[in-house]
Amino acid sequence: MQGVVMYAPGDVRVEERDDPRIAQPTDAIIRLSATCVCGSDLWPYRGVEKVEGPSPMGHEYAGVVEEVGSAVTAVRPGQFVVGSFFASDNTCEICRAGYQSSCVHREPVGAMGAQAQRLRVPLADGTLVAAPDMPPDDLVPGYLAASDVLGTGWFGAEAARVQPGKTVAVVGDGAVGLLAVLAARQLGAERIIAMSRHEPRQKLAREYGATDVVTERGDEGVARIKDLTGGLGAHSVIEAVGTQQSMMQAIRSARPGGHVGYVGVSHDVSLPGQELFFSHVHLHGGPAPVRRFLPELMELIGQRVIDPGKVFDLDLPLAEAARGYQAMDERRAIKTLLRP
Amino acid sequence: MQGVVMYAPGDVRVEERDDPRIAQPTDAIIRLSATCVCGSDLWPYRGVEKVEGPSPMGHEYAGVVEEVGSAVTAVRPGQFVVGSFFASDNTCEICRAGYQSSCVHREPVGAMGAQAQRLRVPLADGTLVAAPDMPPDDLVPGYLAASDVLGTGWFGAEAARVQPGKTVAVVGDGAVGLLAVLAARQLGAERIIAMSRHEPRQKLAREYGATDVVTERGDEGVARIKDLTGGLGAHSVIEAVGTQQSMMQAIRSARPGGHVGYVGVSHDVSLPGQELFFSHVHLHGGPAPVRRFLPELMELIGQRVIDPGKVFDLDLPLAEAARGYQAMDERRAIKTLLRP
Repeated sequence: MQGVVMYAPGDVRVEERDDPRIAQPTDAIIRLSATCVCGSDLWPYRGVEKVEGPSPMGHEYAGVVEEVGSAVTAVRPGQFVVGSFFASDNTCEICRAGYQSSCVHREPVGAMGAQAQRLRVPLADGTLVAAPDMPPDDLVPGYLAASDVLGTGWFGAEAARVQPGKTVAVVGDGAVGLLAVLAARQLGAERIIAMSRHEPRQKLAREYGATDVVTERGDEGVARIKDLTGGLGAHSVIEAVGTQQSMMQAIRSARPGGHVGYVGVSHDVSLPGQELFFSHVHLHGGPAPVRRFLPELMELIGQRVIDPGKVFDLDLPLAEAARGYQAMDERRAIKTLLRP
Repeated sequence: MQGVVMYAPGDVRVEERDDPRIAQPTDAIIRLSATCVCGSDLWPYRGVEKVEGPSPMGHEYAGVVEEVGSAVTAVRPGQFVVGSFFASDNTCEICRAGYQSSCVHREPVGAMGAQAQRLRVPLADGTLVAAPDMPPDDLVPGYLAASDVLGTGWFGAEAARVQPGKTVAVVGDGAVGLLAVLAARQLGAERIIAMSRHEPRQKLAREYGATDVVTERGDEGVARIKDLTGGLGAHSVIEAVGTQQSMMQAIRSARPGGHVGYVGVSHDVSLPGQELFFSHVHLHGGPAPVRRFLPELMELIGQRVIDPGKVFDLDLPLAEAARGYQAMDERRAIKTLLRP
């Protein structure tokens, strides 16, 4: 089969890889309907994270079950399924508490490389969720978004404890930040402040429910949020970048007693204890337990209540993956969908 | 009147100070029944925090109202009252959300120096809570504890979201840590693990409801907590020290999805973003909004449901305050009560 492999920063190739096979009785093999490039794939692409030899890429997937192991009972061949970037048993104490991405048996699906024609998914019963029917083509991007960026934005909003009638600020205008805006809207926020200086992203943020756009960053961005909230700060702030600046911007934009939900993968972040102490904020985040939200999100997508697929503004055949990486790296695309 | 003044690290004197007077119509003057030395007073005493010239000391107080300003309506002369170390209006949006220690009009009572015979309390209506009657002498230490250490331990337990049937670990065996054990018990925790290596403190921890005592610290302490919780970590961890080691011990002792409530004032703490991200913990804390809990805590004390006054294991006349500081510094006393 064809699959994407990163050899070094900036060096992404599509090449022939072995077809995946059932290795454990709990595995499933799926034929991908669509996959995509993640903002976190850009960290190694840009050389910020080390590339340890040729690495299969991709951890976002939606597709049709081809084969299941002998112990799999919850999904069957022919079903259209979505899963998270962490495989989980969905039965351990941590999963039952809603933290499937810290499951005691978790396995990173990214290690298998989802930017490919086929994918082995471990712990299929606990990881995959089937759509009620084969979806029409135009819904496939939305379902694919549920695999990571929608689930991650949604977790950011839940971790920031977005509530009806409250004010939410979103730091970061990538796909996750934009879908955090959508999540905040769905969760009933009254005012949603998107922090973005890119016109096409501002536009999509407004479509998704942003009521205000703030273009300033850092301390100036914080000052603008304070201006818009009677000097107090937002009730909820969602952080979707993962840098020192964005984390401090998020913490400082929240009011005392407010909640910061952070889902941008932390890179060289160090939080000053004393400032955090006196900020009085709640801090929660980490790798999104997408599995917790998948059934609800897939229903909202299937019923066309939400359209998270709009974050894909570049749609390419898998063979042109390198172009997709490049476009995202240069911020010409928000997110690239790949057709295997 | 007599009051405690710190001149330099290790140099604490009791000397004649001006009697406080009503300065604002919202002030009250109280005659202290008891005051005490706080763990946080030891930071400047030990030279860890700078002493900026002679400083009136103390921020914990319980006593009888002597005089009120013209705008005060909620308390009257003759009432026995307790207040928090931060004066608050208790009406602003932040106070109404339960964060009175970040009130938009907050004033540190410590600036006035509560280790004295009399104290001016600003924003009396929003700060002080009156007992229904003049309490018997033996309840005064308990009421005094409510002013800070009990309220702070209680906030730690609330911030760590202690819930019935769950497992709680407490890092720190000072008065706040011990009262966090008491709070966890009251909030229905099933298992309470006190981390302490001091025999008299272990004993009081058990009296207050600790079911287990762990003497190890740092990584070994974390390993013991994991052993005691099926490898997962505690549901809730209360941090009551404020150092880098104690914060990391608290974060690493919590399970994914668990809650860390931190109330030890942070000193030179820096939290690694990536570890925090993958820990999946909730983090909340800061200066305790004691005022939120005072009515409930004072009722529990008055009805002898709880006895937080036991943390005072040294009882001295105000004139001997220096001895009280020394005993706490040398860990010969958990907490010193001073009688003005």
